[in-house]
Amino acid sequence: MSKADAKAQKRQKFEAVFSVLLDELVAHLASKNMPQVALDWYRRNLEYNVPGGKLNRGLSVVDTVEILKGRSLTDDEYFKAAVLGWCVELLQAFFLVSDDMMDSSITRRDQPCYYRLEGVNLIAVNDSFMLEMAIYYLIKKHFRPEPYYINLVELFMEMTYETEIGQLIDLLTAPENHVDLNRFSLERHQLIVIHKTAYYSFYLPVAVAMYMCGIQPASAAAGPDPYELAQSILIPLGEYFQVQDDFLDYAGTPEQIGKIGTDIVDNKCSWCVNTALARATPAQRAVLDENYGRKDAACEARIKATYEEIGIRALYEEYEEAAHKRIMGLIETIPVTSKAPAGQAVLRREVFKTFLDKIYKRSK
Amino acid sequence: MSKADAKAQKRQKFEAVFSVLLDELVAHLASKNMPQVALDWYRRNLEYNVPGGKLNRGLSVVDTVEILKGRSLTDDEYFKAAVLGWCVELLQAFFLVSDDMMDSSITRRDQPCYYRLEGVNLIAVNDSFMLEMAIYYLIKKHFRPEPYYINLVELFMEMTYETEIGQLIDLLTAPENHVDLNRFSLERHQLIVIHKTAYYSFYLPVAVAMYMCGIQPASAAAGPDPYELAQSILIPLGEYFQVQDDFLDYAGTPEQIGKIGTDIVDNKCSWCVNTALARATPAQRAVLDENYGRKDAACEARIKATYEEIGIRALYEEYEEAAHKRIMGLIETIPVTSKAPAGQAVLRREVFKTFLDKIYKRSK
Repeated sequence: MSKADAKAQKRQKFEAVFSVLLDELVAHLASKNMPQVALDWYRRNLEYNVPGGKLNRGLSVVDTVEILKGRSLTDDEYFKAAVLGWCVELLQAFFLVSDDMMDSSITRRDQPCYYRLEGVNLIAVNDSFMLEMAIYYLIKKHFRPEPYYINLVELFMEMTYETEIGQLIDLLTAPENHVDLNRFSLERHQLIVIHKTAYYSFYLPVAVAMYMCGIQPASAAAGPDPYELAQSILIPLGEYFQVQDDFLDYAGTPEQIGKIGTDIVDNKCSWCVNTALARATPAQRAVLDENYGRKDAACEARIKATYEEIGIRALYEEYEEAAHKRIMGLIETIPVTSKAPAGQAVLRREVFKTFLDKIYKRSK
Repeated sequence: MSKADAKAQKRQKFEAVFSVLLDELVAHLASKNMPQVALDWYRRNLEYNVPGGKLNRGLSVVDTVEILKGRSLTDDEYFKAAVLGWCVELLQAFFLVSDDMMDSSITRRDQPCYYRLEGVNLIAVNDSFMLEMAIYYLIKKHFRPEPYYINLVELFMEMTYETEIGQLIDLLTAPENHVDLNRFSLERHQLIVIHKTAYYSFYLPVAVAMYMCGIQPASAAAGPDPYELAQSILIPLGEYFQVQDDFLDYAGTPEQIGKIGTDIVDNKCSWCVNTALARATPAQRAVLDENYGRKDAACEARIKATYEEIGIRALYEEYEEAAHKRIMGLIETIPVTSKAPAGQAVLRREVFKTFLDKIYKRSK
């Protein structure tokens, strides 16, 4: 089987679990005597918004459980890992539906943004809430008897809050219709990226997998907290990932990234503009101030020319090499010979190396 | 001290706890190195949206804890009951901020709706999320060591989901810009009211008070589940309350209800229109179809004339008497001589009678 076939098969197996969860969620509403129109509406909400993306976050829960257990999973283990994976995807769907409204976005995953569908509009606010609450319904249904049940619930809630805090600073730093580059800085960019992306996209999938494998937080075990250790690697990894995303929005071709980058015209607080601001001469700074965030192709072209003058591509290569080296160093802080009670999982370097390998020098 | 003074003092004491929680929530953000602009923004979000209402839901948590304990509370007990009361108010604020956006409302509590403040607009979507997550931050901070911690968390999440489900059927049944009275019925009205209002406004405050007083769900105790018993009374009570609200929107004077009712022009699925529909002759039905939900004073007047023809006032009086009698009967199913381990609270009829007395024949 080719690598692409294996990947497609993996995705299909994961998607099959979504069908089960979709039916559970709709059946739950039906059990409350909701009218058919509400059941159909909720089903469409879930189908339109949850499964259509790359599913990297959800699949990484399953992958991490496999690595931590060091063997292939039983059917029951696979199902449970996939439920948690879909809960991460539900959280992502909640954020995307609401972010698209807040950003007045037009398309998402090559189709109209959900709120732009006929008859949806602001009902999408409530629909996004229902995607969020589906997470806790599913966690309760499938994990209530587990000793780590409360840890899962708290983790999802805390990651949700972190992301919302990140979204708030992003909205205040870079409102689409008010350009003020004095608000920008690499420090501010880092703060936004860590809270808005790194926690829920990188730490969350690994942490839920760790709980499912019975890894105990520090209070119950000796030595350093494995969750803090995982966070100390995954937050920088998520930051690196988002810097790549920002760079690819500028430098990636539409064939590579599947869209045309719009960060410059949308006044986004991107790594590129912050790096340019940090290096700009007064003359270059004036060009940035006058042309960033304008809905005008000539302005955008001037920003791009300034990025090139400043040597953004070489600076990105430097950044990538340094980030890779730094994260490799962090991964090596994980003890190789960790001992744990028989049959109990311990944190492994491979979890993080797998993530880093997928990301390093990616062009899409 | 007059009754009004006592009430004002009670409110002030409760509000003093909000100041503490406000500082805790903002300090939590500050501990994450959030910039001052984000701290100020969150503080205004909390101050503008949480404390300005009647506070009935929040205060009823404190009242219920006092009744269940059968004595006045220690300072620590008062504080904890008030924290839970404010969590109910935070949930309410989350719903109001987002509902006002979905309904394109203009004012709330005599001031502009939050989303209409300068510079807020769609940021209010994320701000409403942060009000929601504040609940779980506060519950964790103040109740993590309690045996009922997980019950509180689940209860808030489940009540949130119920309310969102109710909001969904309401939005699908009565969209503001598409009038179709075939979608309306007293059954549909009941379904909306129970899910959208009764659970979070009536059952939630009592249930959190019960958990705080150590009342065990059925699985851990003998006899009928006290939570189910409470729900079996509080859901009909909440339904009765909302029917009153609907009737007062029509029949209350602005002096009584503090606003001018707009249910008719806003195409609301109100008890009044559903009762009228159930009784209308074909000619009256035609008037209802042609005039309901129109932004036109003459249409509104025709609806009101039809309500009077049908005798809505007398029908409401009948409803109120029947509801009162039915709920009194439900309250009497609570055993008076419940025995419980020394020092442990049991469910008391007085909890429900207090609610019912506050509501019966209210005109505001």
